[in-house]
Amino acid sequence: MKHILGAKALRKVIAGALVLFSAIAVADEGMFPISDIGSLDLKKIGLDLTAEQIFNPNEVCLVDGICRVNGCTGSFVSSKGLIITNHHCAFAAIQAASTPEHDYLNNGFSASSNIEEIPAPGYTVRITEGYEDVSTKVLSVVKPGMTFSERTKAIEKQQKQLEKDAEAANVGMRAEVAEMFTGERYVLFLYTYIKDVRLVFAPPASVGNFGGEVDNWEWPRHTGDFSFMRAYVAPDGSSADYAKNNVPYQPKRVIKVAAEGVNENDFVMLLGYPGRTVRHNTASFLQYEENVRLPFVVDLYGWEIATMEAAGKDDRGVALKLSSRIKSLANVEKRSRGQLKGLNRIGFVNKRRVDEEVLQTFIDSDPARKARAGNLLSDIDAVYAEITANAPLEMNLSNLPSACQTLSFAFTVIDAAHERAKEDIERESQYTDRNYPLTRQRLQLALNDFHLETDQLMLAEMLRRLEAAGATKLLPTVAGELLGGSETERQQRATKLINNSKMHNAEFAMKCFDMTPEQLVSTKDPALVLMSELYPVYLAQREKNKEREGKLSQLYGLLISEKREFLKTAFVPDANGTLRMTYGRVESYSPEDAVIKTPITTLKGMLDKVTGIDPFIAPPRIGELYRAQDFGRYVNPKLNDVPVAILYSTDSTGGNSGSPILNSRGELVGVNFDRAFEATINDFAWNHAYSRSIGVDIRYVLWISDKVYGAKHLISEMGIE
Amino acid sequence: MKHILGAKALRKVIAGALVLFSAIAVADEGMFPISDIGSLDLKKIGLDLTAEQIFNPNEVCLVDGICRVNGCTGSFVSSKGLIITNHHCAFAAIQAASTPEHDYLNNGFSASSNIEEIPAPGYTVRITEGYEDVSTKVLSVVKPGMTFSERTKAIEKQQKQLEKDAEAANVGMRAEVAEMFTGERYVLFLYTYIKDVRLVFAPPASVGNFGGEVDNWEWPRHTGDFSFMRAYVAPDGSSADYAKNNVPYQPKRVIKVAAEGVNENDFVMLLGYPGRTVRHNTASFLQYEENVRLPFVVDLYGWEIATMEAAGKDDRGVALKLSSRIKSLANVEKRSRGQLKGLNRIGFVNKRRVDEEVLQTFIDSDPARKARAGNLLSDIDAVYAEITANAPLEMNLSNLPSACQTLSFAFTVIDAAHERAKEDIERESQYTDRNYPLTRQRLQLALNDFHLETDQLMLAEMLRRLEAAGATKLLPTVAGELLGGSETERQQRATKLINNSKMHNAEFAMKCFDMTPEQLVSTKDPALVLMSELYPVYLAQREKNKEREGKLSQLYGLLISEKREFLKTAFVPDANGTLRMTYGRVESYSPEDAVIKTPITTLKGMLDKVTGIDPFIAPPRIGELYRAQDFGRYVNPKLNDVPVAILYSTDSTGGNSGSPILNSRGELVGVNFDRAFEATINDFAWNHAYSRSIGVDIRYVLWISDKVYGAKHLISEMGIE
Repeated sequence: MKHILGAKALRKVIAGALVLFSAIAVADEGMFPISDIGSLDLKKIGLDLTAEQIFNPNEVCLVDGICRVNGCTGSFVSSKGLIITNHHCAFAAIQAASTPEHDYLNNGFSASSNIEEIPAPGYTVRITEGYEDVSTKVLSVVKPGMTFSERTKAIEKQQKQLEKDAEAANVGMRAEVAEMFTGERYVLFLYTYIKDVRLVFAPPASVGNFGGEVDNWEWPRHTGDFSFMRAYVAPDGSSADYAKNNVPYQPKRVIKVAAEGVNENDFVMLLGYPGRTVRHNTASFLQYEENVRLPFVVDLYGWEIATMEAAGKDDRGVALKLSSRIKSLANVEKRSRGQLKGLNRIGFVNKRRVDEEVLQTFIDSDPARKARAGNLLSDIDAVYAEITANAPLEMNLSNLPSACQTLSFAFTVIDAAHERAKEDIERESQYTDRNYPLTRQRLQLALNDFHLETDQLMLAEMLRRLEAAGATKLLPTVAGELLGGSETERQQRATKLINNSKMHNAEFAMKCFDMTPEQLVSTKDPALVLMSELYPVYLAQREKNKEREGKLSQLYGLLISEKREFLKTAFVPDANGTLRMTYGRVESYSPEDAVIKTPITTLKGMLDKVTGIDPFIAPPRIGELYRAQDFGRYVNPKLNDVPVAILYSTDSTGGNSGSPILNSRGELVGVNFDRAFEATINDFAWNHAYSRSIGVDIRYVLWISDKVYGAKHLISEMGIE
Repeated sequence: MKHILGAKALRKVIAGALVLFSAIAVADEGMFPISDIGSLDLKKIGLDLTAEQIFNPNEVCLVDGICRVNGCTGSFVSSKGLIITNHHCAFAAIQAASTPEHDYLNNGFSASSNIEEIPAPGYTVRITEGYEDVSTKVLSVVKPGMTFSERTKAIEKQQKQLEKDAEAANVGMRAEVAEMFTGERYVLFLYTYIKDVRLVFAPPASVGNFGGEVDNWEWPRHTGDFSFMRAYVAPDGSSADYAKNNVPYQPKRVIKVAAEGVNENDFVMLLGYPGRTVRHNTASFLQYEENVRLPFVVDLYGWEIATMEAAGKDDRGVALKLSSRIKSLANVEKRSRGQLKGLNRIGFVNKRRVDEEVLQTFIDSDPARKARAGNLLSDIDAVYAEITANAPLEMNLSNLPSACQTLSFAFTVIDAAHERAKEDIERESQYTDRNYPLTRQRLQLALNDFHLETDQLMLAEMLRRLEAAGATKLLPTVAGELLGGSETERQQRATKLINNSKMHNAEFAMKCFDMTPEQLVSTKDPALVLMSELYPVYLAQREKNKEREGKLSQLYGLLISEKREFLKTAFVPDANGTLRMTYGRVESYSPEDAVIKTPITTLKGMLDKVTGIDPFIAPPRIGELYRAQDFGRYVNPKLNDVPVAILYSTDSTGGNSGSPILNSRGELVGVNFDRAFEATINDFAWNHAYSRSIGVDIRYVLWISDKVYGAKHLISEMGIE
């Protein structure tokens, strides 16, 4: 799954609100906000806890033991700030610490004491402390006669103001306003915010990423996708940047590790921070995804991945630099293929269209409703038609500075120079005072992973694509001159630009952060010159996006209220990076005719997959221990084997990576890390028949840590005897 | 599966006799010769028939209703010679009759009366009438002091003599001597032999080949892989070549069609002509397959398939010409990949090596046995080591005239000219008087499918491969001059040779059959000049193969007798194209950890697979009838759907294509057509856990014929009310 969402990116999502008509009982589908847990019949569901035991802003509760780790979720499993999350969530930290000489990615890492733990730059941990409905406050700034773009900007500004105010009133805490229902419901969340995070234990990639991209998004799975990190605070307990004398954070609540694990048909629930779903969007949106955006992503990312893999083939140093980026692109590429496959299934988009026809009939049946919302669906369709028409050029333009790092760095410093000149509250979120240090740090981390030859190829390819998308006539002078001519010429121009730019020089790049837009141009750095020239194009695009967002926000807001009237039901809001609870059972499913996938995999199954060729290599010690049947207390007696991964019917998405899999008593029985291939379509629609989440069984986590890597100190720290 | 073996190729197999030590009860594994059926406890197995009801040379029995159709199997399902077999078995006949204007491959074919049935040139039908153990007679010609090559030739000659004698004594019948245990047991089979075969009904490829190469060798499956043909004889009942006034053959026995089909866990058996297994071969043989031969096949065939697919992409005429060859190569290519995957599984080759070590210890434990067989295993290993060392050049040389058709034609006429000059009994089998007409006919059929541009590419590629395999220094003048230089030069030389040759001109090619070797060279046709020059190289290779065969025959003969002593058990002989019975149940299996595949697929499952993109297109009428739930009497009431394909635990291999799937009363419940991917390894070892065969359910056959294509006359002809 591994889709780690940027902290603030979530609110930007053009989310909608048309519910699935062919819907399953809400009780099954939902990713329930913590504010809604009280409305569920928890006992009936199978839980032995009350809603207050799960979340209570005034008392210590289960949620105090759950945290967000960048775009992932983690659990506190000791009173000394020990966090368990996924290997892929700690990947960037492991990669940053790895060199060909100390290759923690290949060999794994285990700190035998606090002093050996490695700082994880760019990592933050947050714990949900409370929430407040701020819908009225947010929407009070929307005035009649505003353009759609003005509407979007007014809401954004108000959100920033509310966050600022809340942080001033709760010193040391972090505040975030999340949109729960587009244009309708907004909630302010308060978080404890920890900035010193360190790597404690990571198995080698041959365990933590066993099966690699071949197995990613697939079941059966045999990946030991877990790692341990630790949260640190200043000696006085306050949040602080990394410092040697910081001390482990003491969580209010520790999640108990249930070393006995879980069995088929058992109740499980996840608590976590699912990133983004768009289940309420229209058929026209799905059609755009199916015909335009997803194929583009599969094609471009596939090319980028192949290019980077070729670059790192014979040079471990280069491979390490590029590994995190490859992993993240490959994850999205394969998810997109899964979504395409799901959408291609005859009937998916059509079914939603049929649902919409039924709704349209309902709307048209009442004159007042018709006057209010008769054109609603066609208005939404028109927005996607417009997006589709402009997609080839827009998608390539927006991917130019993500494919080519040099241009990405240049764009960031130019954008910062313009934005930082504004009032704090007026800036794009990433340049506000509270976020700017993180923006700078991320650029610095990206500079560490820069690879010159790859960047030359990326730029040439993006120029080729821009040209094919008809950019030649639309772009200004400097950019225009890069286009045209033969492939060789394009490559030469790209190589020259990358070579002549200093943007990938860390010292120069950081100095750029202190320059004005004019000073940046006057450096004559070709990347800065190019991106300065293109900057108005990107600004216009930003403006256009806000306008679309404003329009869709208003339309989807109206749509969901019509839907509520029609279906006479409450909806669970789409995932938006805020804390949610979802529940289900450890259970099999049938992905296709005549195939049943059962929900527990084993060491034996893992060893059967081993070919000795990456990604199907296992550390020899696993085979030795297996042959010696040395399972210790981590055996599943029914299977006479160590359970490796489990499959369950919860409702999850990206951001749920690292979520604790909890039993009915709220004890940790595993760590969530993925979904089955058929469940990639979860982002558009959940279905009990095929939506399955995948996690690593706690017994495998413990067996690997204890028996295979001898990290007995961690076992005791978690209180397992 | 679709591996259609040439009639005589089977006896040429270098087969061995070392049994699997880690063997399963013989009762489960076997492909039992009809002579062995009497030794089975049929009642206990689940059969309601006696051995005599299955086979009795003196009375009408079940076997009289089973026939061999070229390399496949078929069943007589009416008293008027109607045969049911696979779509892929009739493929060459459908293809030969198809043109872009009358595209029976794409659109299907249905003759509404006998007069509309289309002759299937090159097709023959044979029915087993009796057998005789001729081991003593065959082995009587082996004399002490013979070289291995002399030994092979003496045995071959004696087999031909026995066949000739038997055919003289049974006029109109066909005789074949089959090697049951290498160098040990030989059986002469007598067959009724029919030469006028016609196409009666074939569904379109979108049914008969639904899923194409993507689904080939896979379960779950939704392929309607069946067709109907008809056997014709002269008005007096004798076997005759095609003639308009021939009449339908009247089989002694008709296989009753059980329209009620079969259910999960039901007993099933196959009768058929499995082509070739090598289950008794050594670890060194398996290692050669894994490291050398199978990777070569996957690589070369993969290239050939891609080349032919590209050639036919925009020209249906070319696509039709190449379709049969593509299908046959693709089938072997994917099977080879399955076998490689099976062999790669840790332990397969090693396990057999361990078994051999145990046997070696047994041999060494007795001085007399050690003196007799102490070097047996190492001697066999040495043969495969020699084969491996010479493989790159030998494999490319032997594939030169199979990849390049022009050279194949040239080789055949040169070989014929040399061989036909010999006494009939001394000739290679395909040039003996009894086989020569078929050899000529096959060349003529191949000429119909010749495609010039493809042949140019094939030759250039084979030259490249020969050069890479070090052929430059080894080949004589003309061939040597084709090698070397740039890729462009090689392609130019290849194009020139193919263009300047007349071998692909049907008239010229057939005239060549009447020329002497000298006359062939004097035509100066470049293909004839080249292959005449290379002919001694191929003759030497033929000699070398006979020597290896002779050596392995003797060694494996000794090995199996040692094995029998050690295991104190009788073995079922490897498949060799003779009639066999195998039984099992309709049952699920687990191909891997956490996956269960259940044994019946449905129309719904088929429609779920439909993407509208080849090979997942279904005729619209199937969807219409499905939505109307118009299943007629062909419904499986439990599923409320028409069962499409079934999976069962019989022991089958190539040649079992088209075999009747019979219930415990010997009635037809389906038609066998494939194996599961894991069962490709069947050829090396059978295992109840993963060896599954795949067939089309008779209810799908009948539903397609009756409801979808309205061939109600066939339904009545089969006696279904």
